Amino acid sequence: MTFQITILGSNSAVPAHGRNPSAQVVEISKKPYLIDCGEGTQMRFSQYGIKSSRIEQIFISHLHGDHYFGLIGLISSYHLLRRNKPLDIFSPTGLEEIIRVQLEAGQTELCYPLHFHIVDTERHQMIFENRQMEVWSLPLNHRIPCSGFLFREKKKERRINKELFEAMQLPHHLAPRLKAGEDVQDPNTGEFLSNKKLTLPPNHERSYAYCSDTAYYEPLIDLIKDADILYHDCTFDKAGTDRAVQTYHGTTEHAATIAQKAGVRRLLIGHFSAKYEDLSPLLEEAREIFPETELALEGEIFQVEAAPVLFNKG
Amino acid sequence: MTFQITILGSNSAVPAHGRNPSAQVVEISKKPYLIDCGEGTQMRFSQYGIKSSRIEQIFISHLHGDHYFGLIGLISSYHLLRRNKPLDIFSPTGLEEIIRVQLEAGQTELCYPLHFHIVDTERHQMIFENRQMEVWSLPLNHRIPCSGFLFREKKKERRINKELFEAMQLPHHLAPRLKAGEDVQDPNTGEFLSNKKLTLPPNHERSYAYCSDTAYYEPLIDLIKDADILYHDCTFDKAGTDRAVQTYHGTTEHAATIAQKAGVRRLLIGHFSAKYEDLSPLLEEAREIFPETELALEGEIFQVEAAPVLFNKG
Repeated sequence: MTFQITILGSNSAVPAHGRNPSAQVVEISKKPYLIDCGEGTQMRFSQYGIKSSRIEQIFISHLHGDHYFGLIGLISSYHLLRRNKPLDIFSPTGLEEIIRVQLEAGQTELCYPLHFHIVDTERHQMIFENRQMEVWSLPLNHRIPCSGFLFREKKKERRINKELFEAMQLPHHLAPRLKAGEDVQDPNTGEFLSNKKLTLPPNHERSYAYCSDTAYYEPLIDLIKDADILYHDCTFDKAGTDRAVQTYHGTTEHAATIAQKAGVRRLLIGHFSAKYEDLSPLLEEAREIFPETELALEGEIFQVEAAPVLFNKG
Repeated sequence: MTFQITILGSNSAVPAHGRNPSAQVVEISKKPYLIDCGEGTQMRFSQYGIKSSRIEQIFISHLHGDHYFGLIGLISSYHLLRRNKPLDIFSPTGLEEIIRVQLEAGQTELCYPLHFHIVDTERHQMIFENRQMEVWSLPLNHRIPCSGFLFREKKKERRINKELFEAMQLPHHLAPRLKAGEDVQDPNTGEFLSNKKLTLPPNHERSYAYCSDTAYYEPLIDLIKDADILYHDCTFDKAGTDRAVQTYHGTTEHAATIAQKAGVRRLLIGHFSAKYEDLSPLLEEAREIFPETELALEGEIFQVEAAPVLFNKG
């Protein structure tokens, strides 16, 4: 099952050094989801060969322009390209009005259904699910209401110990019950078999936590515990801490410390200030605290991989 | 005195083939003016090395998104970059509300004055002037209220026939009156001198007419008579005439015919449909009717040159 993140934009506030404002595509089981949609996102889609028509859910963290100014263009292009399937947009309150006034000004009546869903930025709750995955809101600490998003695979079934199952010549109709965690009776011997004996724990549910924009915010730690990848606001380096505090943004130190305390496996840093052309000093600073850090550079694709060994041991 | 046009975007509706939606910078006497501001305009500024901070007037033809979706990003970036000089925006009614709701959602109070000026799209009138130039509205025929813009140098003074002026040993203080068209008295001889004898007609006032988006619209012809350069909506080729009529856009034939009937010197065609990757067939079609046609390709700079000879003859 695919689970990957493509970075379309990772600059903060103003575009600079060829870097666009925030946007990412998360692909899970071949379905793409868009997180944030800064200006120029639709151009990035074509540059990176991403079929944006397949997107059905868009998650907007907050209503600072570098996170949504590209949305009206995308909505409008979908209309001009004769989309017919619905589009769901999840965001803090206020976005529907912004889109509505612009469609009205252009006398545009969309040819597809557009649904807005308000995200309560004060609560951690499931805001979307389908058969493969769930999306949870993550309250962040920013200048205006702002929510991160936790993308998590659905809880999986227990895995049958195939060797044993076959050696005992158990009938196949028992498999679904075993996967669901039930104990069963051996029809050959009448013996009661414990589920634990015949199954292994489910594979780890992979998860990706997107946390931008936010100041250093410890309540986040519990909510993103053990995520496979964390993307965290890293607008400034350590020397920029005062400015970060003033503007409710993160630094290299903040991002890496949250990653460490939450025990995530990898950290992506992004939402870089335009003042940094060379980002390698930010990477070095973060790695001093949390070695498994990467820069969220545009065009890069990060695979969310299943954690090894630990979760397969049973 | 500089007078040039830089194309930042010339695609219609959706961005395609690396072409951005509409935006141009007109520079007159080293002052830049922005016409339309499709998504991605601020990225084009940095790509083409244009100092966008020097722009003080922006002219938006109409409220279809491909002509203004980049404006909120630019306004917002000016704020983040601590602009302090005022910005004037000329457009049909509705734009102020669109910008306001977005600034409010971001809890942004701009650090510079932003003034909106409503353009009456039914009237041809002067909407802006300074010492060097004037901008006139050009009523167009589109699906929603839409105005083109005529940029014209100010009426110039008559030019003194220097040879004669010096041969007659006339005093310098007469020069301003002669330039203004007055007859004067020769202080040496007492003779009355006719202005016509001592001056040549003013240099031609150069002009640029921006006419997008519009259907074929003959009332335009009189308003753009003898323009040095005309930019005209050319969304479709001749085969696309039905679609052009339906959508209130122009074709190669429409653009070239208007150029010919108005007696302009050069024609730029733009606002290309995304269906054309190769634009050369459009250029060929237009040139069959009006040979002095060029494609308005992004990054190209067109000089508005003074008409030769004719206007210098006196």
